[in-house]
Amino acid sequence: MQTFTIPPFNEETAEDARNYIQTLTKPPGSLGRLEDIAVQLAGITGKRAPSVKKAGVLVFAADHGITEEGVSAFPQSITGQMAKNFQHEGAAVNAFAREKNAAFQLIDIGMVDDLDTHFIGISRKAGKGTKNFRKEAAMTIQQVQDAVQIGREEASAFIETNDLECLITGEMGIGNTSSSSAVLSALYQVDPAEVTGAGTGLDDKGIKKKERVIRDSLAERKPDPSDIWSVLAEVGGYEIAGMTGAMLEAAEKRIPVIVDGFINTTAALAAVHMHPEVKSYLFLGHRSAEKGHAFAIEKLGLKPILELEMRLGEGTGALLAHSILEASAAMIKNMATFDDLAGY
Amino acid sequence: MQTFTIPPFNEETAEDARNYIQTLTKPPGSLGRLEDIAVQLAGITGKRAPSVKKAGVLVFAADHGITEEGVSAFPQSITGQMAKNFQHEGAAVNAFAREKNAAFQLIDIGMVDDLDTHFIGISRKAGKGTKNFRKEAAMTIQQVQDAVQIGREEASAFIETNDLECLITGEMGIGNTSSSSAVLSALYQVDPAEVTGAGTGLDDKGIKKKERVIRDSLAERKPDPSDIWSVLAEVGGYEIAGMTGAMLEAAEKRIPVIVDGFINTTAALAAVHMHPEVKSYLFLGHRSAEKGHAFAIEKLGLKPILELEMRLGEGTGALLAHSILEASAAMIKNMATFDDLAGY
Repeated sequence: MQTFTIPPFNEETAEDARNYIQTLTKPPGSLGRLEDIAVQLAGITGKRAPSVKKAGVLVFAADHGITEEGVSAFPQSITGQMAKNFQHEGAAVNAFAREKNAAFQLIDIGMVDDLDTHFIGISRKAGKGTKNFRKEAAMTIQQVQDAVQIGREEASAFIETNDLECLITGEMGIGNTSSSSAVLSALYQVDPAEVTGAGTGLDDKGIKKKERVIRDSLAERKPDPSDIWSVLAEVGGYEIAGMTGAMLEAAEKRIPVIVDGFINTTAALAAVHMHPEVKSYLFLGHRSAEKGHAFAIEKLGLKPILELEMRLGEGTGALLAHSILEASAAMIKNMATFDDLAGY
Repeated sequence: MQTFTIPPFNEETAEDARNYIQTLTKPPGSLGRLEDIAVQLAGITGKRAPSVKKAGVLVFAADHGITEEGVSAFPQSITGQMAKNFQHEGAAVNAFAREKNAAFQLIDIGMVDDLDTHFIGISRKAGKGTKNFRKEAAMTIQQVQDAVQIGREEASAFIETNDLECLITGEMGIGNTSSSSAVLSALYQVDPAEVTGAGTGLDDKGIKKKERVIRDSLAERKPDPSDIWSVLAEVGGYEIAGMTGAMLEAAEKRIPVIVDGFINTTAALAAVHMHPEVKSYLFLGHRSAEKGHAFAIEKLGLKPILELEMRLGEGTGALLAHSILEASAAMIKNMATFDDLAGY
């Protein structure tokens, strides 16, 4: 098991920021959630007025054997095709990242296909797609550990190379809403019907089938709900474990993380199960339209910054939320105080 | 009365955009509200893939005689002080505008104080603060018309000078939540209690008093609810009328407008009362925490893009929402289609 040494949230700097915000030229509290975000950023970074401008989105791609059971509206081959799309910078996350001058990197942490080596993207497979968890464990414990370690190393390299001040985690993997629903169902001992949705576009009949596959799988796999490693190995995914490692690594470096949608939140919950103190380092970027996200959000206990009825993943919702973090940072860095005003 | 010639919303381009979005490399509908925003932008501009990058916020500042009745947590003199703050670029809207490279301009459309001529800001007074509408009409019909005309001219100049692709309207004026609540109450014939809130920070007792002042004033003023000009003259404000003119002018030029919070939405409703077709050109940036905004939003019939518990005005919420419009534009401009993907 990896251990991460996550520094304590700096309550002193957070308090300093909170007091300073009271001196800014606006009615007290009138910037609402931006004020809370600024306080959290101060506690994370240990700086009253940190910058979060240099952001980067790290996308982990992987395949899922459970797609054999017909749980997705798209075939497994789409994972590899979308990886190509990321490599050609044609996906939504690329469009948004370019718009914001955010760094982008793609990690093949467990795809069946291989990346086209002529383009951006790093091959770090912890496996070649998970096994079909309806029939056998998705991964071994060792593979989960490898994926967490890969997430950690790639996040570290990505942050250092780009001198990042904010990390956004993204994912691509046909079948990964099934895996996430199964992880949540196992971890919190709720029926899959409570946490299973349409994914990329199932109809009601498809959702019912997906629920049944997950229910039957969990009855067979019997993951230990008190052991996150067991849950991830039985029904998780490489990209989920990779994002978990990346989030923990960012927290270790005092870098704020913006968590994206449903699969991302599942990875964040896995991270919190490993190291509860990681939670202070996380922002929840966007409330996904995917059923099950509301449940996951409640367990994580963070309030989404945006709610735009998106359900794409890739890190897209979190990237949009980054603008709000930037505004919070700009507020504390660039606004005048009432003392300044008296001097004009 | 000014007349504006607002071009019809381009349904054909909107439909073209809607169809094109179906070809992008993502599950249908998975970008949620961003897709609707992109369709609206296409209909506004007549271009399938318009840019909205060049944005500018035009802040109208004015004073309100109703402050004599003790309806605000801050004294009237704060309007002039905050205008100075805008001129020194120390206000929240300045911090956000700088962060986003958005243009900024300040119009004194009816302040009691004068602008410091050493700094940015344009003096275009339609009056020197409104009269106390508890005792007499806030403005003459002529003054309202002047303010709308000034808003129109200044928006036109601001758009042309900065080659703007998106206009954000902002305001500053101690007492302007009272004026907005009175306008809404008069226009929709509801009791002030339904549309009156804390403004810059009244306590419950203060809010009750504010409601009573507005109720008593309306009983005296008796504005004609079927005549927006009468309502604005009796209980409106110079900055409200200025923003109304600015919104109508932007629509005339096919420039999308992002409406900010409570006072802005009141101005947008005034614009819709004058020219209903302006509505297609408006986005609602942010749901304000100010009581009464929910009512105004329902009447406007637009869904806020953001909800961050802010209640500052100045254009701040709309400026933050501009990032979401940019992402919508980037989606349609920069994402690959499934045909592109097949060719990789």
